[in-house]
Amino acid sequence: MDRPVITFLTDFGADSAAAICRGVMLDIVRDAQIIDISHSVRKYAIRDGAFLLWCALPWMPVGIHVAVVDPGVGTRRLPIGLRTGRGDVLIGPDNGLLVPAASRLGGIVEVRALENRAFMLAATAATFHGRDIFAPMAAHLAAGRPFAEVGPTIDSGSIVSLRFPDPTIAPGVLDTSVVYVDSFGNLRLAGDTRDLAAAIGPLTPGRALAVTFAATAGSPEVHEIVPWSATFGQVPAGRPLLYEDSFGRLAYADNQGDVARRLGLDVDRPVRIEPA
Amino acid sequence: MDRPVITFLTDFGADSAAAICRGVMLDIVRDAQIIDISHSVRKYAIRDGAFLLWCALPWMPVGIHVAVVDPGVGTRRLPIGLRTGRGDVLIGPDNGLLVPAASRLGGIVEVRALENRAFMLAATAATFHGRDIFAPMAAHLAAGRPFAEVGPTIDSGSIVSLRFPDPTIAPGVLDTSVVYVDSFGNLRLAGDTRDLAAAIGPLTPGRALAVTFAATAGSPEVHEIVPWSATFGQVPAGRPLLYEDSFGRLAYADNQGDVARRLGLDVDRPVRIEPA
Amino acid sequence: MDRPVITFLTDFGADSAAAICRGVMLDIVRDAQIIDISHSVRKYAIRDGAFLLWCALPWMPVGIHVAVVDPGVGTRRLPIGLRTGRGDVLIGPDNGLLVPAASRLGGIVEVRALENRAFMLAATAATFHGRDIFAPMAAHLAAGRPFAEVGPTIDSGSIVSLRFPDPTIAPGVLDTSVVYVDSFGNLRLAGDTRDLAAAIGPLTPGRALAVTFAATAGSPEVHEIVPWSATFGQVPAGRPLLYEDSFGRLAYADNQGDVARRLGLDVDRPVRIEPA
Repeated sequence: MDRPVITFLTDFGADSAAAICRGVMLDIVRDAQIIDISHSVRKYAIRDGAFLLWCALPWMPVGIHVAVVDPGVGTRRLPIGLRTGRGDVLIGPDNGLLVPAASRLGGIVEVRALENRAFMLAATAATFHGRDIFAPMAAHLAAGRPFAEVGPTIDSGSIVSLRFPDPTIAPGVLDTSVVYVDSFGNLRLAGDTRDLAAAIGPLTPGRALAVTFAATAGSPEVHEIVPWSATFGQVPAGRPLLYEDSFGRLAYADNQGDVARRLGLDVDRPVRIEPA
Repeated sequence: MDRPVITFLTDFGADSAAAICRGVMLDIVRDAQIIDISHSVRKYAIRDGAFLLWCALPWMPVGIHVAVVDPGVGTRRLPIGLRTGRGDVLIGPDNGLLVPAASRLGGIVEVRALENRAFMLAATAATFHGRDIFAPMAAHLAAGRPFAEVGPTIDSGSIVSLRFPDPTIAPGVLDTSVVYVDSFGNLRLAGDTRDLAAAIGPLTPGRALAVTFAATAGSPEVHEIVPWSATFGQVPAGRPLLYEDSFGRLAYADNQGDVARRLGLDVDRPVRIEPA
Repeated sequence: MDRPVITFLTDFGADSAAAICRGVMLDIVRDAQIIDISHSVRKYAIRDGAFLLWCALPWMPVGIHVAVVDPGVGTRRLPIGLRTGRGDVLIGPDNGLLVPAASRLGGIVEVRALENRAFMLAATAATFHGRDIFAPMAAHLAAGRPFAEVGPTIDSGSIVSLRFPDPTIAPGVLDTSVVYVDSFGNLRLAGDTRDLAAAIGPLTPGRALAVTFAATAGSPEVHEIVPWSATFGQVPAGRPLLYEDSFGRLAYADNQGDVARRLGLDVDRPVRIEPA
């Protein structure tokens, strides 16, 4: 029988908190393959965590996926489990974190509140549900316990939703925004190639585009003319380009550089794209 | 038979040193589950490493635990192994690093010097005992070799001890200090809830407490009135609270913020807690 | 049968990109032991990645080694596989990254272009060959598919080479340079102990050496007298030393300090070593 897979994402950083959860899981299901997706999610940034899960989970084996970016730990927000059409179960807080990724795994087909105390540690601290609720719950599922045992079903319409920003398509202009800044400093934008083509027509490699990052408090407007490119190497090192990233999204980068740092840009910055 | 567990903590950072040790271990015991506790311990900070081990090991499966924060590598400090009442073996340098954690695993029941060259790599460099002594020693134990084979017993009273600071309990005042700053910027303090209650009486949620961080060279005294809270969400985002952390210790945090950065605080800062 | 080993090094940082590759690999070969060597290689720094592989691979079990520091992703640079005399296969871009490490594993005995689309993901994005080509290729090899199936052989003389800098040995002086700065701030230099002894004679512990870091743009010459030392503890905390690192190279460090930060030094800085 294949070893069960548990993927794991948190904003716990470099302390021992993520390791403690791994220890709890392996104490229950010793043979699991735990795949750490990231523990460097920006602290408390639910949308950043949701974005990384959205990117990662379609490439993961069917399994149990635990995610904890949980500023509301210990408050009334529910611990929940989402069963997907593909057969995965996502485990985490009901704050939207799990929803975009689950929708890419065949959709959410069943939602349950995590209430079965037999699947939690004996004592549950109010500030570390990752260790005391989410990790052991995931491990028991990975060990083969049925999803129905975690707790009662709840209405899928009642859980907290989370949507990434959408672009606005108009004749000759796409209004989008920075959704995520990755570790290379590349800007992942709202929308995909079809959205941009719908606004400004066919995107042939090398087509010149005018990109305007709106002014924000303390940061001036930035305007650059860049080519639509299939890969980084189509522009010289250090030069900017607009491209479709490996997840199908629009993205803006400097070849071999960090454009977010060069231009002082961050998430939610409005971006306008027009023909040059 | 269950796969053996080896946990692993170092201050090696993001180079390949920790990976090299993992390679050495898996070359000896291919089926091990290695749990990386942290490799981002502050360089040379033995007490920080000891604190993270103290937090983590009670949640780990019984196994072999390797820890290397070792400013004295290559000097006369001994490489040692500690067998615990729970059945674990801790492997590392004799500098106090392993002691607080071992005491939480049923206590130290046997101490041995790591001298068996058959459990080391053929050549041992004076600056990388993690690779050449500690990792292979741990792997041979995880593969089932008896602890008695690592080397001779030594007197448990002769090894280097390490104690975390203790608070001072007086009528109406608890004098404590910052023991560890975690990756959220939360301050883990000396002492636990009983210590504080012994000093100032029952701690009901919402009770107002006066917290004073003493002045230090270049850093003024800081005084804040905060509620005793069961979880972060009991104060507004950005506001401070005093609480019992998930390891039973007193702790000070900003809800969804980094209080260490906001107030410029670091380890060993004296802290006084009184009724407000 | 032993579980197959896949080692993995990238400059992907803390986002989910490395995890996505791990997911792809484990979807193909569920039982693999994946050893993450580092995902914090300086962005685009092929030589840094090559250095960390050179350090790490000799201590790894024989297996499949995937490395991705790939500023030319999506351009005409080939994806290649190198079979070594020891029996490993190294997988990555043809930019020199793999070459120094492979030469330490019994040498390169066979080179192939990675062309078999059955060993890639169905769709291959121009900006993420790690996920779409390198990871699945490595996983199929780890699952037991023969190296001959990855694609046609190519002339080993035609691939991109990469050499670390060499020192210059002269009577009474060794001219070397900083090849790598590790996470402790220690400076790994070009050359080894025999090179230095060839230049200035026998290196006895405590022998005083004059070390001069040449001036560079914006950074003055630095001159220090330090002892040749067998281990850090032979000088007081905070004091510099010259030593043979645990990989046999010349290295310069502060005992329990960060000499790169103290002196403002970085890779490629020229270093002259003479008797004091």
